[in-house]
This record gives sequence, structure tokens and C-alpha cells, in this order.
Amino acid sequence: MLFDSLPRRVTVYEVGPRDGLQNEARQVPTGDKIAFIDALSETGLEHIEITSFVSPKWIPQLADAAEVATRVTRRPGVGYSALVPNKRGLDRALEVGMGEIAVFLSASETHNKKNVNKTIADTLDAFTQVIEPALAAGVKVRAYVSTVFGCPYEGEVDPAVALHLCKTLRQMGVYQVSLGDTVGVANPAQVERVLDLVLAEVPIAEVAVHFHDTQGTALANCLAALACGVTTIDAAVGGLGGCPYAPGASGNLATEDLVAMLHSMGLETGIDLEKLIECSRLAESFVGHDLPSKYLKAHLGKRARSRRRAEKGA
Amino acid sequence: MLFDSLPRRVTVYEVGPRDGLQNEARQVPTGDKIAFIDALSETGLEHIEITSFVSPKWIPQLADAAEVATRVTRRPGVGYSALVPNKRGLDRALEVGMGEIAVFLSASETHNKKNVNKTIADTLDAFTQVIEPALAAGVKVRAYVSTVFGCPYEGEVDPAVALHLCKTLRQMGVYQVSLGDTVGVANPAQVERVLDLVLAEVPIAEVAVHFHDTQGTALANCLAALACGVTTIDAAVGGLGGCPYAPGASGNLATEDLVAMLHSMGLETGIDLEKLIECSRLAESFVGHDLPSKYLKAHLGKRARSRRRAEKGA
Repeated sequence: MLFDSLPRRVTVYEVGPRDGLQNEARQVPTGDKIAFIDALSETGLEHIEITSFVSPKWIPQLADAAEVATRVTRRPGVGYSALVPNKRGLDRALEVGMGEIAVFLSASETHNKKNVNKTIADTLDAFTQVIEPALAAGVKVRAYVSTVFGCPYEGEVDPAVALHLCKTLRQMGVYQVSLGDTVGVANPAQVERVLDLVLAEVPIAEVAVHFHDTQGTALANCLAALACGVTTIDAAVGGLGGCPYAPGASGNLATEDLVAMLHSMGLETGIDLEKLIECSRLAESFVGHDLPSKYLKAHLGKRARSRRRAEKGA
Repeated sequence: MLFDSLPRRVTVYEVGPRDGLQNEARQVPTGDKIAFIDALSETGLEHIEITSFVSPKWIPQLADAAEVATRVTRRPGVGYSALVPNKRGLDRALEVGMGEIAVFLSASETHNKKNVNKTIADTLDAFTQVIEPALAAGVKVRAYVSTVFGCPYEGEVDPAVALHLCKTLRQMGVYQVSLGDTVGVANPAQVERVLDLVLAEVPIAEVAVHFHDTQGTALANCLAALACGVTTIDAAVGGLGGCPYAPGASGNLATEDLVAMLHSMGLETGIDLEKLIECSRLAESFVGHDLPSKYLKAHLGKRARSRRRAEKGA
């Protein structure tokens, strides 16, 4: 029995306000972002990545990082984190009292070079300038490893790189490494191969997965990860960050698609799915287009049909 | 290791020309249907359901069933089937030399009643008038059981009904029963529960699964079915039959999404994915809208980007 071995409780790590909004074409007003994050804080989510302290020249969408971080209502029991690319970013994050930051690099040299203009080894070296002062300030550090399951430039990526990075990052004091399928090419068999390798040497609580639904396989990949024992999964509410109508649209796994599947399987998340849907509707209102979440579409369609029936009956 | 137990080869049962087109708003010209089915015959698919011999009053989209069945090029090695609701439909199917037919009923009384205006028991009784003469004429008979994983009227459906129907139908001479998630509410844990029950008493080759991707869970459900040993999966090229832009759009699992995932996992299907994509593009041209397949979108986007790069380079 496959499902007897699944974890009973899954932690969902919400990345929509950062990973989602940084990929949206429209600049979202700061007030809308704050209202959005505050609504997410009321859903039962325990981890929300709210912004990124990167240079506004790189990602103008998140130039208001400090204001967002200062003005959101920090609900007890919810961890708020922000992406930090370097020491300058860390300083800005510390100034506004972030309790958690995340660093990032790629599992493929070419992608890492194109993304941060450094080799993987030099990126790890540079992390010490961020991670050590962060830990010294009592700030938790998470890490994203992208292109673990495939690189747009190099194609296949050796799973041994993911293992090496996980081990190195945890030695540096990172509490959890999120293994990312940046281009949405992972498949469930590969997920099992990578995780079997990694989890043989890294404790399960220190590994998360981050799938993109570019080819519709994100939930199947989550299922494979759960079957390997993984208990933390990243997602972005509504599937924020991917435009549903663009050909070749890539995008984050939608949080409600994940939570709906987990709940229907009897796995607990502590999240209120109805409240999550309202967060997606709020996001749709300020990004200016429908979000790609399939559960959202199905749910809103069902709701509209009930309303029409009720009106007919009245 | 979960994936060590998967079947090495998976049979994909294409239902797009029937289950897909009958749910499209636009009436597709007969010549387009024939060209579409002929193109599907060249992809390596071994099973194609091409039409339905239902009354044109019920499904006007498939009123040209006899003409389609007569004019398609029957490629050796490919099985062509058609849906048949009653003796009159069987007679029409036999007249045009169909080698395989499919009968259908629901696992929930209310859905069955609304669909065919009979109880499940009366539907099974009536099947004898179709199945016996079909078998006597050397025609293979498949069966669809819909709402196995949930009914829009009754909610949850007892898995024992699926087992009972599988056993009864095979006693009647049906060679394979396709268990359908008509409203797209199945989850992987439930798929395992239902299949464990059914496969304890029914040989694997006699059971297929038919998932809808309404909530984005179709591939995860396929993965669960594969882990249970299932080797035949229904799908509709492009995800035909579901409108991607309608709120609450339900739709068949897209054949290319399934085949792409299976191939990436190293499982064989005998299907040429590039040719399958061309079939989807053909279908898009005559249904008049984009099809919901995520693999299709990702593939076309990638192709467009390569073309732009090549043009820039030239």
C-alpha cells in the first residue's frame, strides 16, 4: 500500500508574494501586496515568503520590499521570510526585522552563471557573508536550489549536485533546502531518484520540494515526493507567476491545487481552503488576469452554477 | 522504491474523437474528423474510439457516425471502437464493420438515471441485448463506468459498486472496464483504495482508468493507478472536450500530457509524441479554440522561442 507510507501532515510553504509577484508583468501597488499577505496570514499557512531584498534594478516589481516587510501584520505562529541575494540585501532585511531569509543558487553551472554571474563554488563562498551574520542575528536561513531536475541550457542535471549542495548548505547552517524544478521538466520517477539519493544523507525535515506546473506534472511530482517522505512543499497561491494564456506559460504550482489534493487524500495542512481561494481572487483582482490554478477555476465554476440554480429556484 | 514496481509499457486508449468532440460546442465537419482520426492512426496509438452510435437527437455532434466509421483509413494494428447505447446503435455499428464497441453506465444510481433513464440493474439487463449479439458477431466489447470516484448528485460513491460492476460486466463478456472520474474529483489515495479492491478480484488487463483533469489531479491519479499495476489509461488528445477558458471547465486528461510524463519516466507507449502534438494542432484548427493540454502549450512556446532565436541569429 503506497499511501500507508505518506506523512499525515504536510507543511505548505507559500511563495506567491515573492516568487509569484516577481514574475507578474504588472507592478502591483504596495497596499495591495500588504492586504494580500495579511489575507494569506489568516489562512492557516505557517510560512510565507513575502518579498525579496534584491536590487530594484533587477526586479523592479519588488522594489518596495522594506515597506512591505514593515507594514504587514505579523501574525503569531506564522513565519515570514524574504529572499536575499547578498550582504546588502541581508542588511536591508535585518533593518526591517525579518526573522527568516532565503538564499538561492542553481544546480547547473550555466544557469547559475546566467542568474548570479558566478560559479556555483563562488556562490557558496559568497553565502558565508550572508548566512553567518544572519545566523548571528538569530535569523533562520533557508536555501533554494534551482534547476535540480533539469536546466534550460544544460538539459539533465546530475542528482549528485543536489546532494552535494544540500550537505554543504546544511553545514553552513541552512535549516532547509528547497529543491526546485525551475523549468517544469521533472517527472515522478526522477523525483524519486533524486530524493532517494538526498534523503539517504539529509534529514527529511531539512528538504523541501518546489515544482512548476509547466507540463501539468507538478501534483504527480508532489505525490512522488510525499511517497519518499517529504513533508514540506512550496507553492504559490493561484499559481501566481505564470500567465495562463501565454504559449509555453510556466508557472508555480498553485497552492490551492496542492492543498485540495492533500485534503482530499486525508492529509492535514492546517490551511483553510476557502480562505485560500479568497486570497487567489484578491490576487486576480490586482494582477489583472485569471490565475492558472485548476482548482480555483473548478471551484468558481461550481459556485457560479449553484448561484444560478438558487436564482432560478427563487 | 515506488517506481521499480511500475509497468514498463502502458497502453494509451485515445478517446478524443468521441469523448472529446461530443463535448465541443462547435459542430466539426465530417472531413475534418476523418483527417483527424487518420492522423491519430499514424501516431502509434493502438486504440482509438472514433465516434458514438447514439441518437443524433442526443448528441448532434456525432450524427455522422456511420460516415466517419466508413471513411476512416483503418490502419493494421490499430483497434477502432465506437460507443453504442443500445441494440439500434449496435446494428448501425455492425453495418459499418466496427470491430469493437463500448457500452456505458454509471456507478451512482442518480447519475445513471439522469444519463440513461434507467436503474443500474436495468441498464445491466439491457446490455445483454447489445453485448450478446456483438460478441456473436465477433465484436469486442469494452465498458465505461462513470462517476466511480464521485457523483455530482450523490457525492461519494461506494468502491464496492465499481467492483460489482467490473465482475458483472466481465461475466457478460466485456474484455475491459474503464473506471471513470467523470467530474474530476478523484484523488490518488482514493484511486489506490478503489483499485486495490477491484484488482483483488479482476485481472489487471481488464481494468483501465479514465481521469478528468478538472482540478489538475489527473496525472497524479494516473501515477497512483500505475503504482497499483494498471496498464491501460484513457486520454483525449489536447484535452479535447474541456474548454480551457470557461470557469469550472472540466475536461479529459490530455493524451500528450500523459504520454510526455510516461516517456520522461522511461515507460514505453509506442506513441510518437511529436506526431501526437500535430494531431492536437489539427484539432485546435477545427474546434476553434486553444486546447487545455499543458504539455502542448509548453511545447509550442518552446518551439516559438527557438524560432525567434533562429531568426535573430539569421
